Order: sequence, then C-alpha cells, then structure tokens
Amino acid sequence: MSKRFYCGKLTSEHIGQEVTLKGWVQKRRDLGGLIFIDLRDRSGIVQIVFNPALNEEALKQAENVRSEYVLEISGKVVARDESTINNNLATGHLEVEVSNIIILNKSETPPFAIQDDLDTAEETRLKYRYLDLRRTPLQETFKLRHKTTQVIRNFLNEEEFLEMETPMLTKSTPEGARDYLVPSRVHPGEFYALPQSPQLFKQLLMVSGFEKYYQIARCFRDEDLRADRQPEFTQIDIETSFMTKEDIMEMMERMMKKVMKEVKNLDIQTPFPQISYDEAMERYGSDKPDTRFELEIVNVSEVVKDSGFKVFSSAVESGGKVSGLNVKGSASHFSRKDIDKLTDYVKIYGAKGLAWLKAENNELSGPIAKFFNEEEVQQLKTSMSVEDGDLLLFVADKTTVVYESLGALRLKLGKELNMIDESKFNFLWVTDWPLLEYDEESDRYFAAHHPFTMPADGDLDKLDTAPGEAKAEAYDLVLNGYELGGGSLRIYQKEMQEKMFKALGFSQEEANEQFGFLMEALEFGAPPHGGIALGFDRFIMLLAGRKNLRDTILFPKTASASCLLTEAPSTVSDAQLEELSLKLHLKK
Amino acid sequence: MSKRFYCGKLTSEHIGQEVTLKGWVQKRRDLGGLIFIDLRDRSGIVQIVFNPALNEEALKQAENVRSEYVLEISGKVVARDESTINNNLATGHLEVEVSNIIILNKSETPPFAIQDDLDTAEETRLKYRYLDLRRTPLQETFKLRHKTTQVIRNFLNEEEFLEMETPMLTKSTPEGARDYLVPSRVHPGEFYALPQSPQLFKQLLMVSGFEKYYQIARCFRDEDLRADRQPEFTQIDIETSFMTKEDIMEMMERMMKKVMKEVKNLDIQTPFPQISYDEAMERYGSDKPDTRFELEIVNVSEVVKDSGFKVFSSAVESGGKVSGLNVKGSASHFSRKDIDKLTDYVKIYGAKGLAWLKAENNELSGPIAKFFNEEEVQQLKTSMSVEDGDLLLFVADKTTVVYESLGALRLKLGKELNMIDESKFNFLWVTDWPLLEYDEESDRYFAAHHPFTMPADGDLDKLDTAPGEAKAEAYDLVLNGYELGGGSLRIYQKEMQEKMFKALGFSQEEANEQFGFLMEALEFGAPPHGGIALGFDRFIMLLAGRKNLRDTILFPKTASASCLLTEAPSTVSDAQLEELSLKLHLKK
Repeated sequence: MSKRFYCGKLTSEHIGQEVTLKGWVQKRRDLGGLIFIDLRDRSGIVQIVFNPALNEEALKQAENVRSEYVLEISGKVVARDESTINNNLATGHLEVEVSNIIILNKSETPPFAIQDDLDTAEETRLKYRYLDLRRTPLQETFKLRHKTTQVIRNFLNEEEFLEMETPMLTKSTPEGARDYLVPSRVHPGEFYALPQSPQLFKQLLMVSGFEKYYQIARCFRDEDLRADRQPEFTQIDIETSFMTKEDIMEMMERMMKKVMKEVKNLDIQTPFPQISYDEAMERYGSDKPDTRFELEIVNVSEVVKDSGFKVFSSAVESGGKVSGLNVKGSASHFSRKDIDKLTDYVKIYGAKGLAWLKAENNELSGPIAKFFNEEEVQQLKTSMSVEDGDLLLFVADKTTVVYESLGALRLKLGKELNMIDESKFNFLWVTDWPLLEYDEESDRYFAAHHPFTMPADGDLDKLDTAPGEAKAEAYDLVLNGYELGGGSLRIYQKEMQEKMFKALGFSQEEANEQFGFLMEALEFGAPPHGGIALGFDRFIMLLAGRKNLRDTILFPKTASASCLLTEAPSTVSDAQLEELSLKLHLKK
Repeated sequence: MSKRFYCGKLTSEHIGQEVTLKGWVQKRRDLGGLIFIDLRDRSGIVQIVFNPALNEEALKQAENVRSEYVLEISGKVVARDESTINNNLATGHLEVEVSNIIILNKSETPPFAIQDDLDTAEETRLKYRYLDLRRTPLQETFKLRHKTTQVIRNFLNEEEFLEMETPMLTKSTPEGARDYLVPSRVHPGEFYALPQSPQLFKQLLMVSGFEKYYQIARCFRDEDLRADRQPEFTQIDIETSFMTKEDIMEMMERMMKKVMKEVKNLDIQTPFPQISYDEAMERYGSDKPDTRFELEIVNVSEVVKDSGFKVFSSAVESGGKVSGLNVKGSASHFSRKDIDKLTDYVKIYGAKGLAWLKAENNELSGPIAKFFNEEEVQQLKTSMSVEDGDLLLFVADKTTVVYESLGALRLKLGKELNMIDESKFNFLWVTDWPLLEYDEESDRYFAAHHPFTMPADGDLDKLDTAPGEAKAEAYDLVLNGYELGGGSLRIYQKEMQEKMFKALGFSQEEANEQFGFLMEALEFGAPPHGGIALGFDRFIMLLAGRKNLRDTILFPKTASASCLLTEAPSTVSDAQLEELSLKLHLKK
C-alpha cells in the first residue's frame, strides 16, 4: 500500500507519485466511460478518476458508489489537461488515477447536501449535527477554535502560568445566576452545583501560592437562552497574584496581539483604548461599545434645558437628560414613515418617543424646530457638528432609558446604513465600573461584577454612605461591541469582604454559611490578586466571522436547552430517582 | 522599585543586585539584634535579613511578622559567610539584605505547619486545602501535572489532532456506571446526565470527518468511591479514523516515551511488551499485571490432577484449576502463623484455603507433602523452578477464584518482600480481551469494555453461538499494575452495532431509544475508527510517585463524595426545587 496523503494537500510536487487517499465521496460524475469522484477529507477535496483502461474492476465498483460513501483508494497523481483545470479547487490542477478502491463504508442519502451554503432548517442540521459538521465552514471554525486554544495556552505557558483543573461538582450559592444542580445519592436531600465560573477556586489557588493560574473552563448557567447564550460555555479563566491592574491589562493585550497575529494574521495596535464606564454610557449608550463606527451619542441637555420644547426641558428638570445622534447625510434618506419605524424601535427600550430635526439650507427643520431659539439652534449645531443633509434624532427621558434606547438605535443605524467595517477588530477596555447596582424590584444592591471585586482605592467607605457611587477595580475587555470578558482585582482582606457582603444585604450568618470558607481563607495570608475571564465561544464567533454562537460549539443546545441529536434532556427511571431520594413534582 | 525576582531562583549571578521579592513567611528567627526570615514563593525559599544598620524601621516592622504573613520586600542579594551556608536550601549560599518591607497581608496561625512532612489528619488538610496546597510536595505535583498536560497536548498537536470540546450536559444511558443527573428546569421531569466519558460524541466527530480528536476531558461516575476513585476525574481522550490498532498503539508509545523523557527525564523502551488477556490472568492473576517484579503464578493443574490430595484433584476435575506461587528463598521466613495470615488474606478473594510446601534438603515438606508421589514432586519442582529454601503457595478452586486470590497474594508478597523496584516505569499492553462478560446475578452478558467495541476479526458470529468466547479489538495500557487506559477499535457499521446490542440483551426498541442517534449516524458514511482513553489523575499519581489519587486533584472529594472545604453537597432552597419540579423523598 502506498503512503496515505490528505486530499486537499496534494500539490504539483506529488505529480507522478503513487498515493493512498481516504475520505468521503463529495460528488460522482460519469462521463465518456470514465467515473470522476470528488473525494473529501478534513483537508479538502481532490478529483479521482476511474478509467477502465487502468482497472476495470475498480471502475465497476465505483459505479456503486454514492455521495458520502467512505473510500480508500490508491493511484497516481497526474496533472490535468489545461482545459479541465478547476480553479475553484485548490487541487484543481491535478487528479488521481485510481488503480485500487476499497469501499470502507456505505451511506444513505443524507438529509441535506454537504456543501458550504445551505438553507436547510436549523432543527434538521442540529438533529444530524455530525453531517452538518462535515461542511467546510464548520470544519474551518473548529480548526480555528483548536488553533486559538493552543495559541492562548502557549502564551500563558510562556508567562509561567499553570493550567489547573477546578471541580465541576461544587457548592450552590444563590448569589449570581441560576445554578444547575446535581442531586447527591450519598447525601440524600443534598445537591452539588455545576460551576458558573471557577471564581472562588481560582482565588483559593492564589491563597495557596500558585500565583499564576489559568484554565480553559467549562461553565454553566441555567438562564433563559438568547442567541448568544448556551447553558454550558467555555471561559478562558485567568488569575494572578501580586500583579497590578495595569500589569494584567497589558498582559492581556499582548495575548490578544499574539492571537490576532497567529490566528488571523492581523497586526493589531496595543495598548488598547480605554474608556470609563460612565463615558461609554454617555457616548455609546452601552457598557460594551462597538467602536468600529462613529455615530456617537451627544448629550445636549445643557443646550435644550431651557428650550420651549417641554418634552426636553422637563426631562432635564426632572433629573433625566436629552441626548441625540447625528446621522450624517441621512436627512433625505429617512421619510416620516422611516422615522416612525425608528420611534417604534426606541419604544422597545422604554423611550416615550423619538424627536428629530433635519439640517437643510443651513437651518434645522422638522415639527419641533420651532421650539428652539437662534442660540439654541446654533449650540445644537456646534455640539453635534451639524452640516446640511444631517438627520438629528433625540431621546429625552430618564438617564437609563436615554442610554439604552439611543445605544440600541445607534447599533441599528450603524448596521442598516453599512457604517460598520466588518474587517475591523476593535478591542477596548471599559474601566471604572460601578461596584454595585441598585435593583428596584428587590430593593437592594447587587454586585455589578461579583461580590469579590475590590472597591476602587478610597471608595470603601462609600459602601456605608453612598453604595451606588462606589467604583470598582474592574476592567472589561470589549471587542466589536461584544463583552469578551470581565476582570478585576479581588478583595483579599477579610474585613473588606465582610463589609462587601453587608453592603449586599447579607446577614453575617448568611455570609458565613455561603462564603465562610472564603473568608476563612482570607485570614491565612491571602496575597493581593486579580484576574480576568474571557468568553471563549464568543471570541471564536468573532474570530471566525460567524453570527451564531451555536456555530462555535460542536454539539450546541437549542433555545430551550435541548440537544436535538441525542434528545437530552430525557426522562429517567423511577429507580434512578429513588436512589437520589427524589420525586417528580410536576404541575398539571 | 527594583525588579521582582522569584525567591527560589536567585543564584550567585544575582549577588550585588537590588531585587524585589513577594512571598510568604516560612519561618522567622531573631538572632543577635537581627531578624532572619525564610521567604517562600512558588519557586522556593530564600533567606532575607533585617539589619538595623540598614533600615531600623524595616526591622521594627519585621518584629510584627509571623508565619504565613505575605511580604513584599526589596533589598540586595549578598553571599553568605562560609560558616552560615545552608546546604539544605538551593539558595542557601546567599541571602537578601532588606532595605524595604511592605506587609501585604497578615495571617492567623495556620492549623498545621506548611512543611513537607505532616501527620495532620487528612480531614483537617482537606478542610484547609488551600493551606495544604502551599506545601512543596503538592506544589510540585501540580507543576508536574501542568507540564505533563502540555507535553501531551504538544505531542497530539504535532500529530495533527484537533482539541475539541464535547458537551457536559448529555443524555443519561443506563448501560455502564451510574450517571450523575442534572434536572432540567425548562423540561419538567427530564434530566441531563454528566458524561461518564465523551465516547459517543468522539465517535460522532469521526463520522463528521474530523479524523483526529483529543480532549483532556472531565468525566463523572456516581460510584462508591475507593482510594483510587473520585466522582469526577480527568481523562486524556483520543479518537482517530482510518488508523489500525497497531498505528494507535505505536502512536501512544511515542507519546509515553515523550512524556517520560520530558517530565521524568527517563528514556523508556518502545515498543511496549504485549500480553494477551488470557496470559495475563494465567501468569499474574490480573488484567493489569505489575511486571516490575517476577513472582509469576504457575498453573500446576496438569501436574496434580491425579494426585492423592483431593482438594487439588477435585478442583481440576470439576473444571477449576490449581496454581501456585514460588516465593523464592522464603521458606525460613514464613512461620505457620505467617502462612495462616496469608490464608486469611486469600479467603477475602473467595479462596477456601492456601496450601503450602517448603523446599528443604532437596525435598518438599509440609502437611500436604505426603500426598504427592515422586514423579509429581519432580514435576512440581521443574514447573515451578524450585530450589532449596523456596516457599510454594497454592490455591485450588474455580478459575476466577484462583486468579483473583493468587493475583492479590502476588501483589501483597511483592510489596511486603520489597520485590518492587519503585524507580521502574513498566508499561505493558494487554490485548485480546473478551468482548463480553457474563454476569451471573443478572443472567446476561455485559460489554467487557463498552458496547461500541469492535469484535475481533472473525468473532462476530460467536455473538450468536458462544458470546463468552468472542474476543475484542481492544488494548489496555497498563503501568506498574495500574490500568492507565483502555482503547479499542469501534464498531462502524449499523448491522454490527445492532448485533452487539442484541447480544447484550437489548430489544430493538430499547437499543433505538438509547442509542438510535448513534445507529443512525453509522448509516451516513461512518469511517473505520478507534481510540483510547487514559486516566490522567492516575497517570499523574504514578509520575509524581504519590500513593493517593487525592494528592493529584486540586480540590478532591472524600470517600463519601464530599468537599470538606466548601461543604458541597449541601441543601438547596425549596424555591430551587420547585423550579426544577422536584420534591425530596427522604427515607426515614
């Protein structure tokens, strides 16, 4: 038997050589007494030819071969005739003349063709995921995922990090998202929880003195799923001792630079720009701004606070604000009807309406134009850099509504007006996060990141006086409008951690019951430490230019957290439940 | 601030240099107005000295410092006086004269000292695992674990394997060990299972054409724990298409050769010896023989089958066998009382007794000696290579009892008589496994490996006629008497898989319900494939020379599957149960 080669890796160098190939039948064509087969393996495709002059028996066997049959063939690599070269194929200038064929396995006709573009329903593709995964775009995505994993590991290994495995069967803590629970058989009535992140364990590893930890860690959240959520997801989890915030951020920049170079062959600029949380909200209406396009939000509250337009002036008076977008050169592209649609859109985010002005003939026109005096018009034009042909869109409301609605509108317009350069990879740090967020419904503060985040220098006392104003030693890494990951310095002193739990409304007893082991660990020489966790699936989605997180996970779940391939979850036997001391308690 | 160095990495080269160190106080000694501290970080220890002549303020601060305080110091590296060199420390020939100290954190007195040897109860060490992990032997074990992981990954990456992540929330299948279940909130009454191994997913990846897969995968089994079991464990999981059994075994040998060289700096011999399952049982009474010492089991059934000793002759007559161990030169070391103890030991394994003979003065003596005629004695002496001074131990019973009891006795004697060279790493392949194992209790066959293992060439028909005699295309890798991992070629044709399920007593309906998706996948062009899974925790245990699997896992569970540190598992709230449509059903 000749040496085995990969189909897609045959080149002119191999012409004249005897090779063995193993792969799948992409396509068969019978032509002039010959049979041509496109043979596919993980490396690509090459054409193989059955010629009765060479081996009549092989040709006969080839007559039975259909799409997705698995073949092992051997033969000679030859150059194709000039006239038959296929420029769509990397190996299109050669073919293999088959001298021998073994049909390794047959195939039924697959429910959809194994080709790059498909309009098959996603349900069908997920049910036959193993066939969907044969398609080149998915094969390439998982090769890219493999490569990215290795680049990141190599980087961290060179930085003297240790890859360490933390437990999956851990303790349930109600703080945070909803846990996936695992009933214990040995301890009736008790449960493990699957980790939402290795946060506490990695902090304990710092207390242990390992100093530099990483893990490409599976994490679990039982939340209602959106397009960019999965019940289990993978996180690049990093923790270090003795490093400053700046040290950690600089190291992450070097890591990203290396990934972009080795995976995408792109040189990106470091250091990454930094923006404070407050400024990000003000300018982009988002804590994860997509900076690939301008269209920034402009706060015009000061300009319009005394204007005759009551909607504006009263919004400012009642503590809210008025902000606007200048959609450059778009005045004539948006009819009233178009603007009505945008109005409906911002209403989704709680805005009561969308005011607008058009700049034409050096003036501002539109239904609300009459409410502004000459000076106000001039200031609007200056602050929003208005030129003739611009469309100005305004929301006046509570600050949160203004941010959310204009932030969403900005993204919508950016996409629809093709303002986004899809080839760009814009990394951005968002810093100076609030430490706590007030939740009206439950009338308490929650940790904006998690309860182990260090308050900004000097802000500790605010936990007593003005908790909402305390800032955190936190830094989020944003890429193209997606939160890639969140990092922070952590609390490493027991007293501070106690104070934090108190600010979150924990009684001392509750804090001890849930996090006693952490607070005890902080008493035995915990070093200053901090880290970051990056959403790996999402990062791969962006690197691979995919739109759907499911394309980056080998066997993803649907929006109802089902696996259409294996039909998980499924019922289990009464004996299994009995062993776990559980009974079903189904609602009618 | 001067550059930060690691304590353990300071060498003569650094003498005269200003350095910054960050670490933990191992020990403080006050002597002649000076304070000496052994400062420890993850690299090791160096002595730092506080001298009032240099900085009186620093010395004053050092007076408050106690064990396990976290310090940042800077100072100058100096050579120690000849007379004060500490040869027990890698850095014992130098010390750092402290010019500046920051106490980063304090520490309570730890519940046990951070030193290499400890007799603290394991419960205490597990409760304060983060302190136990500070000890050098554990630090070194996890550094070795990190390194081994990277060597294996690098090897597999070079072999063009793709690292791929399979799901953790999967489908429960009753075949195999007991699953850990995860209740679904979205699908009331339904459950996911945590994977016992990624077996089916990796096979599906072969159907997808990825061809070479690996994963360092977390797996879960809810079994009663033994010293070498944990509820969650890590497995080096490998699967390939188109490779022969020999290809796979040869590749694993190269991988192990590389690990042993890079991690232990040992050159090991390849190819590894191979032994069939039958021969392993016959010669070692074990399917995972420890070949670091001889003491092989000898089958003497043919010799004694007609002897006057009824226990022997009737064992053979009733289809069992008589086998023995020759404990060389030990006749005089074992009193009757000692042999009685060995008899009690083999009874644990179901043996009814232990017969013995001693070779003295060219004769065999002992209570049963009289039953053997001259020829039988001569044949015994020949077959067991008997010399004066040898002790012969025999078990006569059903074959399984003979194997189990003598296999266990062999290991016990090997240890007690110091026959084992602990520096050896003896790899061994065990091949030609039975495909199925008959279980008397449930009166059915079970898969000896798993139901996806390919029958040996030509043995498929035995599934109908003599299932117990069918062999498998399986190969287990054994190291020093531990099963490192099991591999096999897999069934890749639907008809064969159906036949296998039938042999295992599945109705077609049951087979379809549990494994329908696999059988369907085999219909769409599944390639020939096979692989192996290696128990990584156990491998690390052997590489690190540890005796306890818990020493190789950062946060291990106890024998009752509890985490003494976090107190998992624990009770959860009624609201959590309600959301999962579950009720506790506790026995009184």
